[in-house]
Parts: sequence; C-alpha cells; structure tokens
Amino acid sequence: MTAKGKIWGGRFSEEIDAIVNKINASIDFDKRLYKEDITGSIAHCKMLGLKGIIPNAEADLIIKALKEILGEIENNLIIFDGYEDIHGLVETLLIEKVGPVGKKLHTGRSRNDQIALDIRIFTKSAAQRAIDLIDELRRSFVRLADKNIDVVMPGYTHLQKAQPILAAHHLLAYYEMFSRDRMRFVNCCNNADVMPLGSAALAGSTFNLDRNFVAEELGFSEISLNSMDAVSDRDFILDYMYSASVLMMHLSRLGEELILWSTNEFNYISISDKFCTGSSIMPQKKNPDLPELIRGKTGRVYGNLMGLLTTMKGLPLAYNKDMQEDKEPFFDTVDTIEICLEVTARLINEINFNRDKMTDAVNKGYLTATDLADYLTGKNLPFRDAHKIVGEMVIYAMKTSRELHELKLEEMKKFYHDIEDDIFSWLDPAETIKKRNIPGGTGPEIVKKRIEQLKAELNL
Amino acid sequence: MTAKGKIWGGRFSEEIDAIVNKINASIDFDKRLYKEDITGSIAHCKMLGLKGIIPNAEADLIIKALKEILGEIENNLIIFDGYEDIHGLVETLLIEKVGPVGKKLHTGRSRNDQIALDIRIFTKSAAQRAIDLIDELRRSFVRLADKNIDVVMPGYTHLQKAQPILAAHHLLAYYEMFSRDRMRFVNCCNNADVMPLGSAALAGSTFNLDRNFVAEELGFSEISLNSMDAVSDRDFILDYMYSASVLMMHLSRLGEELILWSTNEFNYISISDKFCTGSSIMPQKKNPDLPELIRGKTGRVYGNLMGLLTTMKGLPLAYNKDMQEDKEPFFDTVDTIEICLEVTARLINEINFNRDKMTDAVNKGYLTATDLADYLTGKNLPFRDAHKIVGEMVIYAMKTSRELHELKLEEMKKFYHDIEDDIFSWLDPAETIKKRNIPGGTGPEIVKKRIEQLKAELNL
Amino acid sequence: MTAKGKIWGGRFSEEIDAIVNKINASIDFDKRLYKEDITGSIAHCKMLGLKGIIPNAEADLIIKALKEILGEIENNLIIFDGYEDIHGLVETLLIEKVGPVGKKLHTGRSRNDQIALDIRIFTKSAAQRAIDLIDELRRSFVRLADKNIDVVMPGYTHLQKAQPILAAHHLLAYYEMFSRDRMRFVNCCNNADVMPLGSAALAGSTFNLDRNFVAEELGFSEISLNSMDAVSDRDFILDYMYSASVLMMHLSRLGEELILWSTNEFNYISISDKFCTGSSIMPQKKNPDLPELIRGKTGRVYGNLMGLLTTMKGLPLAYNKDMQEDKEPFFDTVDTIEICLEVTARLINEINFNRDKMTDAVNKGYLTATDLADYLTGKNLPFRDAHKIVGEMVIYAMKTSRELHELKLEEMKKFYHDIEDDIFSWLDPAETIKKRNIPGGTGPEIVKKRIEQLKAELNL
Amino acid sequence: MTAKGKIWGGRFSEEIDAIVNKINASIDFDKRLYKEDITGSIAHCKMLGLKGIIPNAEADLIIKALKEILGEIENNLIIFDGYEDIHGLVETLLIEKVGPVGKKLHTGRSRNDQIALDIRIFTKSAAQRAIDLIDELRRSFVRLADKNIDVVMPGYTHLQKAQPILAAHHLLAYYEMFSRDRMRFVNCCNNADVMPLGSAALAGSTFNLDRNFVAEELGFSEISLNSMDAVSDRDFILDYMYSASVLMMHLSRLGEELILWSTNEFNYISISDKFCTGSSIMPQKKNPDLPELIRGKTGRVYGNLMGLLTTMKGLPLAYNKDMQEDKEPFFDTVDTIEICLEVTARLINEINFNRDKMTDAVNKGYLTATDLADYLTGKNLPFRDAHKIVGEMVIYAMKTSRELHELKLEEMKKFYHDIEDDIFSWLDPAETIKKRNIPGGTGPEIVKKRIEQLKAELNL
Repeated sequence: MTAKGKIWGGRFSEEIDAIVNKINASIDFDKRLYKEDITGSIAHCKMLGLKGIIPNAEADLIIKALKEILGEIENNLIIFDGYEDIHGLVETLLIEKVGPVGKKLHTGRSRNDQIALDIRIFTKSAAQRAIDLIDELRRSFVRLADKNIDVVMPGYTHLQKAQPILAAHHLLAYYEMFSRDRMRFVNCCNNADVMPLGSAALAGSTFNLDRNFVAEELGFSEISLNSMDAVSDRDFILDYMYSASVLMMHLSRLGEELILWSTNEFNYISISDKFCTGSSIMPQKKNPDLPELIRGKTGRVYGNLMGLLTTMKGLPLAYNKDMQEDKEPFFDTVDTIEICLEVTARLINEINFNRDKMTDAVNKGYLTATDLADYLTGKNLPFRDAHKIVGEMVIYAMKTSRELHELKLEEMKKFYHDIEDDIFSWLDPAETIKKRNIPGGTGPEIVKKRIEQLKAELNL
Repeated sequence: MTAKGKIWGGRFSEEIDAIVNKINASIDFDKRLYKEDITGSIAHCKMLGLKGIIPNAEADLIIKALKEILGEIENNLIIFDGYEDIHGLVETLLIEKVGPVGKKLHTGRSRNDQIALDIRIFTKSAAQRAIDLIDELRRSFVRLADKNIDVVMPGYTHLQKAQPILAAHHLLAYYEMFSRDRMRFVNCCNNADVMPLGSAALAGSTFNLDRNFVAEELGFSEISLNSMDAVSDRDFILDYMYSASVLMMHLSRLGEELILWSTNEFNYISISDKFCTGSSIMPQKKNPDLPELIRGKTGRVYGNLMGLLTTMKGLPLAYNKDMQEDKEPFFDTVDTIEICLEVTARLINEINFNRDKMTDAVNKGYLTATDLADYLTGKNLPFRDAHKIVGEMVIYAMKTSRELHELKLEEMKKFYHDIEDDIFSWLDPAETIKKRNIPGGTGPEIVKKRIEQLKAELNL
Repeated sequence: MTAKGKIWGGRFSEEIDAIVNKINASIDFDKRLYKEDITGSIAHCKMLGLKGIIPNAEADLIIKALKEILGEIENNLIIFDGYEDIHGLVETLLIEKVGPVGKKLHTGRSRNDQIALDIRIFTKSAAQRAIDLIDELRRSFVRLADKNIDVVMPGYTHLQKAQPILAAHHLLAYYEMFSRDRMRFVNCCNNADVMPLGSAALAGSTFNLDRNFVAEELGFSEISLNSMDAVSDRDFILDYMYSASVLMMHLSRLGEELILWSTNEFNYISISDKFCTGSSIMPQKKNPDLPELIRGKTGRVYGNLMGLLTTMKGLPLAYNKDMQEDKEPFFDTVDTIEICLEVTARLINEINFNRDKMTDAVNKGYLTATDLADYLTGKNLPFRDAHKIVGEMVIYAMKTSRELHELKLEEMKKFYHDIEDDIFSWLDPAETIKKRNIPGGTGPEIVKKRIEQLKAELNL
Repeated sequence: MTAKGKIWGGRFSEEIDAIVNKINASIDFDKRLYKEDITGSIAHCKMLGLKGIIPNAEADLIIKALKEILGEIENNLIIFDGYEDIHGLVETLLIEKVGPVGKKLHTGRSRNDQIALDIRIFTKSAAQRAIDLIDELRRSFVRLADKNIDVVMPGYTHLQKAQPILAAHHLLAYYEMFSRDRMRFVNCCNNADVMPLGSAALAGSTFNLDRNFVAEELGFSEISLNSMDAVSDRDFILDYMYSASVLMMHLSRLGEELILWSTNEFNYISISDKFCTGSSIMPQKKNPDLPELIRGKTGRVYGNLMGLLTTMKGLPLAYNKDMQEDKEPFFDTVDTIEICLEVTARLINEINFNRDKMTDAVNKGYLTATDLADYLTGKNLPFRDAHKIVGEMVIYAMKTSRELHELKLEEMKKFYHDIEDDIFSWLDPAETIKKRNIPGGTGPEIVKKRIEQLKAELNL
C-alpha cells in the first residue's frame, strides 16, 4: 500500500508496509493546518515567480490552483483519507489540477521548513485568540467586581477565615493572574513570529530565495537566522503550552473556589441552572460541573506540556521524526483552553452573590483579630506582644461563645489596660475594611479606584 | 438546547446553555465504551429480573432490546451526535424501542457506578491485549537472538565501547524489560478486576441487588467492598498508564539503539525499505522513522499519566466531574502503546545485522582491556593495581595506533613481568567472550541455554 | 584536584577539573547507601574467599575491616567530603586499613553492578518500611471508624450533599485506597528482589563467582538473568516512585477533606492544637497545616516520578551516567512519603468528629431524595419517572424552604397518588441509611461487619 | 517541644507535637533566604521609622541589629537548627539583641507578604545569574564557531547524513536556542520585579505604609496591585522553572550530540581528559560523563516544574501551606542549571574537532544528492521529477559502491540527458556548501558575517 501524496521514494525498492503508513501518517491531525499550509505555499510560489526561479506564468497558475484547493477544502469537497500528510495532499491536488507544473512548487523548500512555517502561523493566531479570550474574561471579572462593589466577605488563608475583604477585591486577584497570563501569550506570539522558510531541509536553500518578501507577505516580523535551528525549534509551541498550563492553574484555583462557594456549607454564590447539571440517580442534585471540568482539564494541559518537553529531550539536530509528536498535544491544549476560557467568562457573568450569607459569615470567626492587634500596636505595644494578647482574648471569647465585638470594654481592659471605647470601630468588619486603603489593599476606596481604572483600560 | 438522552433534570427550571453541553458532553469519547456499557446493562438487568426487582418479562424485553442496540451500533446504524453520554444514548434508544419499561433499567444504579463498571471492563481487556502484544514482541526478540546467536558486537557503556558481547545477549536484555512490563499489566488487570455495580451514586443501593451474580456474569473475580471508594477509584487506569509509561521508556531505549545502529557511522543493522521513509527534498535519505516515532510517542504516554495524576490530586470523595477527564488520555495511551508494540514486533522481525561491520567494530577500541586486568589479577596482582597497569598499557598502545592484541609479548612484559604467552587468548574478543559463562553473562553457552529455555516457554 | 577514592584513572594524562568533580561526585547523596554498600561488599568478599578467587585469609581480613568501617561510619567518625562516591570512599578506607590486600575487593565486580546491588537493597527495605507505615495508617482508620461507628454525615458528590452515609463508611473508603497502595509496594519489593552482582560492567564477570551464594547471603530471592539489563534497569525505583505517587494522590484527597471539614463552614472535625499552627499576624488563626503540607507534597512526589521517567527515556544500553540522577529524587520521595504516612496516621488518631454539626448537616439539603425515588420505584413507577417526580418535589420543597420530611403527606400525594404514610421512614437519614446494607454499602450492619473483619485481620 | 522563633501561638493551649515541627519547619531550606529576608526587613523598618509608625530611633536600633545579624550569619556564627523558619530566626535573634523593641519589626507585615518579598528578591537575582551564565555560554559557542570556521561536516536529519554543513553553522544553531532561553529569563526577571510588601496576610495593612519607598529601596520597579494575589502568586517561580526546563531541553540536545560525536564511531570531537572520567573496571574507558549528566539532569528540572504546577493546582485563595513546597524544587532547579551552564561553557571551550574524520564523513553518504536535484531543477525539470531521478541515481551508485561524484558523466546522462560537465561542482561538498549563502543558511560567507556580528554584540 502506498500513501497517496507521498512526495519521496525514488530511492526505495519496496513498498511501505501498511502499518507503517498507519503510524507514520499525520494527515489525521495535520489536516487542521490546511489553511496555513496553502497560504504559506502561495507566498512561497509568488516569490519563486518574482525571483524568476520559476516562470511567472507558472507561478500564477499554481497560485490560482492553490486558492481553488483552499476553497474546496473549506467547502468540505476534499477527502483527506489515505494521504500521508497535508503537504502531500496539497501537492497531489495541485498536480491533478495543473499538471507537471505543479511539481515545481516544492522548489527550494523541504517539508522540514514548510511544517515549521505552518505551525508558526498557527501558533501566532492561536496565541492571539487566547489573548482575546483572556481579555473577555478579564472584562467579566471587572464587571462582576463592579456590580458587587459593596459585598463584604471573609478572606481566607489555609481555608480558614482570616480577615474581612471586599468580594470585588477577591475577584480582582484573578484579574491580576489573567493579566499575567495574557502577557505570557504575547511573549509566545512574539517567539512564534519568525519566518523559517528558506531553511530547506536543514542547511538553507541553494536557490536565490527572497526570504524577507515571504515574511512580509505572511505578516512575520523577522526571518530565522540559522537554518538548522529553524527546522529543529519547537520552543514556541512549548511556550504556548506553558502559558496554557499556568492559565489552567489559575482557572483551577478559581474553579476550586466556585465549587466551594456553591456548597450548601459556604453558600456564597448561586450559579444559574443553565450552567449546572443534575444527577442520574439523585433528583435533588445541582452540580457545579463546569468549574469541576475546568479544574479537571488542568491535568491534560499539564500533561501535554510534560509530554512535548519529554519528546524534545535529547534529540540531536536537526529534524527528527519524533517532532511529529508536537501537533496533537498542542491542538488539544489549544482547544482545551479556548473552551475553558469561553465557558469561564460566561459563567462569571452569571454568578450571583448571596450577600446575606456572606455578611453572616464575615461576622463570625474573629476576623478582626488582626485589627485588634494593630489597634494595640497603636497603643505603643510592640506588635508581637499585641499579637499574643489578642490570641488570649480570642480564646477567652471562644470559651464564652462570643465574637470579639461582643466582649465588654471592661473585659477587654483586663487583657490590656489601654483599650478604650474607640476599640469597637476596629472590631466591626464593615469599619475595619476601610482602614485597608493602602495601595493593593482591600479598602473600598482603593478598590473602587482600581475598578474605574480598569474599566477605562478595557473600554467598559 | 438540550442534549439528547439527558437522564436527569426534573429539578431544573432553565435549559442548559449550548456551550455547557459542548464542554460537558462526553459522548465523543465515551461512545467507545458502548459494548462495555450495554454488556454491563444486560447483566444488571438480568439480575434485576432474577431478584424480582423488576418483573422477569420486562427484564427479558429490555435485554432483547439492548442486544439489538448493540448490533445496531456495531453496524454503524446509530448516530451518536447530540447525546450527552453513552449511558444516556443507550437508555434513550432503549425507551424508544420498548417504551416506559425501558425507564426501569436504571433501577438501583447510578451513572457513577455504571461508568466505573464500563471502564473496568475496558481496562481488563486493554491490559489483556497489552499482554498479548508484549508476548508477541518477546517472541520476536527471542527469534532474532536465536537467528543471530553467533554475532559478536561491542557492548557499550556511556555509548563508549566497553566489552565484547553477543548481539543475542544484548537483545535478550530487552526481553527482560518486556517481561517486567508484562507483569505490570498483569497486576493492572488484577486491580481492575473488581465489580463496582451496586455502589450506586456513592452509598450503595437500597435495592436487594445480587452483586456477586453480576460479577460472575461479567467475569469479575471480586466485588468492591466500599461503595464510596468504588465510584471514586481510578487507580487501575493510573496503573495501566504507568505500566504503559515504563513500557514506552523501554521502547524508547530500543528506538534510540535502532536509530544509532542504522546510522552510517555504526551501520550495524539494515531495516528493510518497507519499514522506512524518505525525504521530500533529499533523494538519498532512508530514515528510521518508526523507531523515532516510537521514541517520540514516549512523551505523550508520560504526559497522559502525569495529566491524570494531576486531575485526581486533591479531589474530595466521592465522584467529581473532574474524573470525566480520565477517558481521553487513557484511550490515547491504549491506542499508542498498541500500535507501538505491534510496529516494534514487526520491525524486530525485519532486522538484519551487518555482521562484518560488527566484527570490525569489536576488534577496535581496546574492548578486552578488562579481560587483561582480570588476567593480571589471576597473576596475583590486586585488581585495583591490575586496572592501573592496563590503563597505562592502553595509553601505550594508543600512542602507536595499535590494539592490545597487536602489542608484542616483550612490550607487555615491561608493564608486568608475569605476563605470559597465554595472554593472547584474553585479548581476542571471540575468545574472551567465552569466559563470561557466569549465569546472566554474555558467554555463548549461557546465552544459548537461555534462548532454549525461552523458546520452550514461549512455544517457539 | 583529584577526588579522593577515585578508583579509575590509569589511562588519564590530565587531572580532572575541579568543576567536574563538583558535578560528577555523588558522595553527597550516595553516602546514604553506606550500609548497603558495605553489606554487599562483605557478601561479595566472603564469596570470593569461598570460591578461592582470593585467599580465604585475605577475605577474612577485608571483611573484618569492612565491618570496622561500617561501625566507624555509624559512629560519625568518617568525613565524606572530597570523595567521588561511596564505593571509592569505602575502598580507600579499606586500603588504608589493610594495605594492598584491600585492592582485591573489587575483583569480578564493577561499580555498575555494585550500585545496582546497593540501590536494590535500599529499595527493598524502603518498600518494606512503606508497607509497615501504611499498615499503621490502615489501623488508624479502622480505629477511628470503629470509635465513630454511629456518626452519620452527608456523603458528597461534586462537593454537593448527596446522600446520608456513615462517617465510618467514608473513612473505610480510604482504608481501601491504602490497601491498594500496600499491594503496589509489595509488588515493588518483589521487583527489587533480584540480585545483580556478577553482571560486572555489563557483560558478566570472567571470574567463577557464585552468584546464588551472594543472593542468599543478602536475602535475595533471585539472581538477575541478563547482565546488560541488570546494570541498566531502574524499573524498581520507578515502581516505588509510582506507588508513592498514587499514595500521595490518595493522601491529597484525604488532606483536601480534612481541610474542608476543619473549616468554619463545614466544621465536622476538630484537630487538636498540637497538630495545628497559627499565624504570625492573625492571632485567631488555627491552621490545618499538616493536611495542607501533605496535599502540597504530592507535587514533589509526582515531579520526582516524572523526572526519572524523563531521565531514563531514550538511553541506549547499558549503563549511562544519566542514571546517577536516579538517587536524589528517589531518596526525596522515600523521605517524603515516610513523614507523610507517619504524620497522617498520628493525625487520624487525634481527630474528633463534631457529631452535632454532622447531624444537622445531614438533615438539611434533601439528602434522601434518592430514597424517595427508590420508594416510588417500589410503587411500580419506572425509576426514570420516579427520578423526575422527586426532582419536582424538591423544587416544591425548596420554594417553601422546607426539607422533604417536612412536607405533608397530602402535599406529597399531589406529586404521586400512591405515596403512603410509610414514606416518612424513607425520608429520615437515620432510617434510610439502614436500607443500604448491600455488600459495600453504607448500611450500619454491613459497615460494622467489615470493621470487625478488619480488626481481626489487623490484630486490633 | 517548641520550635525556637515561633512567632505565633497566643491562642494555642497545647504544645506542638514534635513530628509537626519536623514536617512543618522550613528552616532547613529557607535559611538560604537569610540575606533577602534581612535586607527586606531593613527596608521595611526604615520605612516604618520614616512614616513614624515606630519611632525613628527604634528603627535605627533595629536596623543596626539586623545588619549585625546578617554579618553573623555570613560568618557562620549562627546555628539554624531548631527554628521554625528564617523569619522566626531573625526576629528571635533581633529581640535577643535589642530587647522588646525588636517585637515592633513585624508591624504592618505578615509572613505571607514577607516570604513573597524574599522569594521575589531571590528570583530576580537567580534569573540575572542565569542570564549571565547563558551569555558566557553564548560567547563560548561563538568562539568555538569562529575557531573552526572552515570545518565542514555532515548535517543530519533523523540521525542520517543529510547535507554538508559548516560545523560553525551547527554550533550557532545552539547560539540561537540559548538566545531564546536568555529572553525567557529576562521575562521571568520582569515578572518577579513586583514588590509585595504591604499586602500583609492577604487584605493589605491598616498601617499607613509607604510601599513605593520600600520598592525603591529594594530596587523593585513596581508594587503589587492586589494584596490577595500578591500573597498567592508563585507564577514567577514557575516562569523560572519553565525557562530552566527549556534550557535543559536545549542542553540535553547538545549533550546528546557531544556524546554521539565522542563515540568511536563518529569520532568528530575530542574532549580533554580533564573533562572526562574513567571506569572502575574497564581500564581503557574515557567516558563523556559531563554531557551525560547534563542530559540526565533534564529530568529533575522538568520534574520540579511539574511538581510545583501540581502543588499550585486547585488551591483556593489566598495563602495555603501547600505553597511552602515552592522552595526546595526551585532551589534545586537554580543550582542544577547554574552548574550545568557553567560546566557546559567550559566544556565547549575545550572541544577539539577531528577535522580529518569530519571531512571523510562528509564525502561519504550521498550528501550532495539534494544539490544534484537542485541542479536538475535549474535544467527546467520540475523539482519533484528531479527528486525522483536523483533517487534512482543514488540507488545506481550504491549498487556499485560509489559516491555520486564518482559516477562518470555519461553514466549520469543516462538518467537525464541535460546533465553537463558543470555537474561536478554540485557534487563536491566543499563547493556546494558555498551555494547556501541565503540568510540563515550554512554558506561560509553568511556564517562568517553572522559570527562577526555576534562577536561585535558580545564584545569578543
């Protein structure tokens, strides 16, 4: 059996074994690159004509046919089965259309630099899509924060109630994470933005190609400076996969929190029915499947990164067939983060905070103990001593099942004589939160200012 | 939009958002479990009838319809699109066939224990297939070793020539690795061999199910002993993925060696044309794509393991939606190792050793230096001193571009007086190799004996 | 600069660069194998004497000195700095003690099979320690389950309340996981239980060694059957690391639950002060650091596994220096799981359930909805229809802020006419739980039986 | 037992269990941050004084004492054992020195933002060191390329000889890789360059801290904008670990090539004795341990990345104890890449190419077949047809054991009539290489130009 569109073989005396085609063929997944492949070929061919490497008329003929093929693929008129790879498919269709002239397209080119080109074009647009989706997600967070600017809730460390915070402040923590993610995809895009064609198999072409013309034609900022590196380099895919991994880590943290907040026990948020699913056996269940799925999908994105890092380890220069293994995990990562980003942005838009529950929660659990210590520090007590005294006051309050603000002034004075009536404004969450107007803090003023700034930046 | 075959929802007041169905639906990959799902349902239904939980006649009706559905799926008569999952699809088709009676199939069962059952049946047969493919591979190695029993080649450490070995001995090292892999899949199969049905959602069913009957019906050795664990446990998938990872590690080592041996520089083996591919630009190339691909695929198998380990980390009991992420990487791992095992076994059958090249190689590079040291040890020189003297002799020989056996006796005597004429039998690779007939060694006698033993074991 | 105890070099004309010693030396971590190394050397030497390869008297002298060295190391009398590796250190000390006779110890042996021996001895005992620690942990779970046999709590799926369960049943789910972990370490121990000495560098020794004697002397069940495999094989370390990874995955799930249960919101357990820590700034905090740390340490154990899998990928036979990288991650994994297992067992012993909280929790959240559906199924309603009706009843109850058992009979009858007075026993968690006495279920009878069985097995 | 320097505990009624201290204490590894911790404390304290939060005189006293402590630690006068962490140690020593005033240092600060500060300072300098070491490595490559500008060797794909290339061109491929690595560390440095102090535990401080002053004092460009994110963020460590992973991937590819080139079979390079090691049993061995070790260490660096990604997965905000697990793998990665970079740079400086071997190698194996096809394309043959014809010519030549340039003109003409006498300049490696002067190609002119450019850039 021979794969259709096999563009090598003059030196071979035996037919390829069927199982070899099965494991070797990449058409099942690299067909996804048909547009990049044809666009790249058109630019290459245009240049071949301009430089007189092939006659201009032939170049025009090839380009016209390539455009037709592109249209046919987009209209589902092409059957991919049985070809070895997308390059062979396109070249075969081309020769069917234009005859022997089509055999000139591959002049000065190898599949090694061709696939590097295709995957770089793909990476650039995938990174750009990630950026756009992250921007939409960032807008969702700002909108949700803005809408709930007055909601106070417990802030947690170690999943133990720690201090009162604004829900908006909590949400904007994710804004910061996603902003860093955005920057990583921008860097990834830049790393991919290098035009490799002209590197040929590994040593550069002997033809007088105009590499800068091709780069401009395809919207690349630079051309590669070393042909061996250009055909061996998959760093930009790893960069995407890593950026995606950190993004998923952030989404998994968000997912964990949404799951927690949706529990009967926390009960801080309600997610609308249209974003939940039920149980096949338990009729009462309303499950936060989406945050769970997103948290779970973190694994595959990490795994894809680890997989390609492993594949690339220890490969000698230049191209090795191992590198064909770059595409499937990459595509899987792209698809995974795109759906996760879209779903999350829409989910965030649909979240309702259960304010009463949150207010109750913030009033129980000694969340203003640190403020009390800060108060004592203002009374000239070293912080470490203040910390110790407040610890004792908490135990005292717990023993009588009260919160700190439920203690009487004289009771408090027993722990430190200088405590005065003004103490109570340090024990009320709604009051103490205002004291944290330090830049980056949860104080309402500073948080509102930040939201206004972000709305301006994001055109909200 | 509603997914077809959604088997929950009485409590929900809003329709599910389309994108939720897109991310949530598992039908695209869990359809692969149709046979396991239907087989499991048949056993469950049979038991429901036997125990009088549903009338026997209804059970018969359902079973008959399930068998029909199985046949229809196997004949490609069913379109899977639009369903949520394989369970919903089967139940919907069933109800279409038999009417309301079909709604009784899910009695005493949840999707949580149902999917656990399906995936355990699948794992058991996948592990068994792996074992069979490994056995075929082991046979290939024994055959190749047997065929080349008299080929001597350099053994390497640090990829530097070390000592003469039999090629057969080298091949049998892989036999040992694959034998250990086999055992891992046997253990994996045992770990999967536990019947979970009856665990229901998480707490066990209230119906008087006969779990042992279902287990026997489906060929399981045991039933699960804790319902919460039974629906939360994916260890057996991890076991498969880990076994696959070590297997791929072994295959990657083999791949590396086949690639090395196929180089112009080593030139120890020829692989027939039908197992190689060429270059789109370099007409002379004949590339060892298969070992490269196999080596490269190690990455995805590792990545899949890492992915599922990550997904399972930190999940509270019992079932969480994250666990839906178990299937795709698992299926990918199964498919990957199956093709790799099959390809490798066939490739091994087609390898020809270039004996002349190997003989030349073993005669150059001071491979018998250790034997010389052993010889000196026999002359009552402590091994460490012998080692040092031989090191000096090697330098002496290198300086005059000779091998050790090309030194004259008197030259050698200068390094140690007691060297006698019998030394030369210790410097000839073909001779010294015979001295390594210690169990596990490369001596021809011991290797032949081992091959005979393995041929008997494997019925070759 | 020369590393002390360098046991090679006769052929070298230049001194090693200092930085080479720094990266190359393994003494910093392989010193941990001193006991295994010396014990192995004693067995090897005893055999050399018995077989007459070295004179018996010399063997005795060496053995005596080795025992002295062992004692000196155990009494911290030896400084390890500056040596290349543990083998070189021991041999150097030996020669210092007994003179040139010490140079005979390495007869018929290479560092390649020596380190394989050392690490196998180490692995066997590490696996045995893991088994013992797991057993202690399993006992803790059984004791805690036994002590709290009457505590009912909500069982969760998707972290949403699902059905009432016995806390003991939940605990025993972990018992099952750890039992599987135990089995993995038993398998690992068996895989390590193969004696490699006699394989020499890679090809087997030319000396007439009695490998079986050495195996028996050191308590091994088998000898290795292929010398090249024996010096290249690190599967048994990977087996340990994988077993540890799944164990940590289980511990991380437990950790997550303990953290959740310790929150103010769940409040199901109290952990004694001596197993918690506080905050440097928030005086009221009592943090569940231990479960968090254990959950966090899952990462390093996974990472170590992935690291060694990566290191071993694509290595040609036989020994390569890359393999020196096996030890540090292995030791780190051993230390990590040992402390985690010990801490967890002790922590489990110190857990107190807040029964009131749990009872409250189980009575809120419609946890008996499934039982209601099962009840309706008993009234000849197909399960799928029953599920739908109960869904509607739950919504009805929610709208009036009641639980199912708070609905009146006539209200329920509107949903399905056949509902009778007996329905209330299906709506009371304490009652319905008794209906789940199916094997593996949460019914008190079956759980008690299981506990008695385990107490007998574990001698509790 | 109480850890020394425990800076919390007022609320606790029981002593911490010893094993808790063992697993909980981080002093063993975070002591490495002593300098960052003290420097940060000095800046914090200076600001406290300036803002009048504590009296200036007390601030001066504290700062003076902190400087003394720094000196004492650097002079090894401090014993770290028994403390919980570096923060507790420093605060304890401080209070011992200055009395109760020392207890004021922690005012407006938590260990959460303090450790974030310490590790950011550390990351910035580690990233800068990586950049410097990479620069040194890049210089080594340019020097080696420059020195060997006239060496021609086979370029490989699939480890099969492909086309003639300049060794310098091959070396500069690594230059490109390391330049990308450099950029990643620059990005990492920027991501770490955000000052978190003032975030306190999670919500921001109530004190009127001047965060920008502290930032300037410590050389940070920005302050963090969200306190919850600031104490929860470890992205910058992941960025470092990822940058290190790709770097190690590149080094592992180099390592693989150095190992191959050092084999007896390739024999392209000699590494000086001072960078190799020998065998304990085989006196003739000279092993390329360093490239092997570096290749092997790739595993641990990947594993560390995967470990921390796993640890961070699914953590709710803000600080969780899991995050203490960030440091050990990070430090291990830093140490690993620093030694690997240093060793590689020095090793590259010591490499000698065996020119004769390389020239021989390039003249065998039909490396100019592509050039022949390009020649035919110039004769107006479509490339695909030319490729086919050359494939047949290669087979013809192989059958008579000749290279292409050894065929006679008339023999060649039989394959294509238009082949003329000028063909021979296309078959000579030294000649054809000159035709690849396309930008990025291996042509000597373009490579020399690139080297001159790099020498100017790097001040060589």
